[in-house]
Amino acid sequence: MRPWRTLARRVVLSRPPWMEVAEERIALPDGREIEGFLSIRTRDFAAIVAVTEPHEVVLIRSYKHGLRSVSLAVPAGYVEEGEDSLTSAKRELREETGYEASEWTSLGRYVVDGNYGVATEHVYLARRAKKVTEPASGDLEEMEILLVPLHDVMALLLRGEIAQLSSAAALALATLELEARAGLDRETVD
Amino acid sequence: MRPWRTLARRVVLSRPPWMEVAEERIALPDGREIEGFLSIRTRDFAAIVAVTEPHEVVLIRSYKHGLRSVSLAVPAGYVEEGEDSLTSAKRELREETGYEASEWTSLGRYVVDGNYGVATEHVYLARRAKKVTEPASGDLEEMEILLVPLHDVMALLLRGEIAQLSSAAALALATLELEARAGLDRETVD
Repeated sequence: MRPWRTLARRVVLSRPPWMEVAEERIALPDGREIEGFLSIRTRDFAAIVAVTEPHEVVLIRSYKHGLRSVSLAVPAGYVEEGEDSLTSAKRELREETGYEASEWTSLGRYVVDGNYGVATEHVYLARRAKKVTEPASGDLEEMEILLVPLHDVMALLLRGEIAQLSSAAALALATLELEARAGLDRETVD
Repeated sequence: MRPWRTLARRVVLSRPPWMEVAEERIALPDGREIEGFLSIRTRDFAAIVAVTEPHEVVLIRSYKHGLRSVSLAVPAGYVEEGEDSLTSAKRELREETGYEASEWTSLGRYVVDGNYGVATEHVYLARRAKKVTEPASGDLEEMEILLVPLHDVMALLLRGEIAQLSSAAALALATLELEARAGLDRETVD
């Protein structure tokens, strides 16, 4: 399976540090050439499914302008220049919710759009989360912190209350990971 | 929790039918005004987790230029003008893989980016999938169709072989839905 080749690239919109859009001239493996294939770069971000010891998930309720509505989401934020994504995840969890967690697991990195690229989401599961301070996100949005029982998350997803793809993916992946861990624990006990 | 208000909107990049980028002047609930808040529109799409009777998932292996790599993904495609997303899902499954399915379930609709918007992904689970014809996607990519046992999907995700967020989300949501259904079936039998 052969990659496409970029023959030329022209930036058509630049809004540093937020966004760059480029058009590429592409050579397909079969010899055809495509003009104006669009490529978007926004900033990479980390999303955190933080779970407390009583198996509650830390969620944020806020208005998001990309949705034009109020929705529930997991804590998330941009990876700053020179920062590794785990450091970003720990920082954003603390800033947005006031929580810290002692056990961190990567649940993968995912490119937002297969055609345009856009950004990479780094998904983390943070277990044994505890509130240590008050939130101080510095973000533009008003935020409300909620604790939701883990076994209610799938219902929230299906009721449309988690409207952002990045949060839905993180919550579904974390639920599967926690189920797999619970299964392993049961086998160890048996 | 109060919404933001858009005071003015200016299109800064237009590439119909693929993409539009706009800048907005925003009024925050606390009275502050924000200049140049970016908003992206690309096309909405449907993603399909198709599962055969022996519990295998239909995946596509292809080079995706947004990833700059070969990856596994679920069948997916744009919702055409005037089409409802379930119709798109059925059409794309047939075009890209040659499969049809008799039982369709919506697993929700998710906005790709909470800040910029971008697009909405409509996720579908398609059960009792069967191959009925040869694929004829008309897409630019070379594609290879694979059948992967459902219980191997989580391992594929954690090994980074499902690199697109839209596919990872769809597969994780479908796995949770199928587990919930299996649990209900067991309760019915008990």
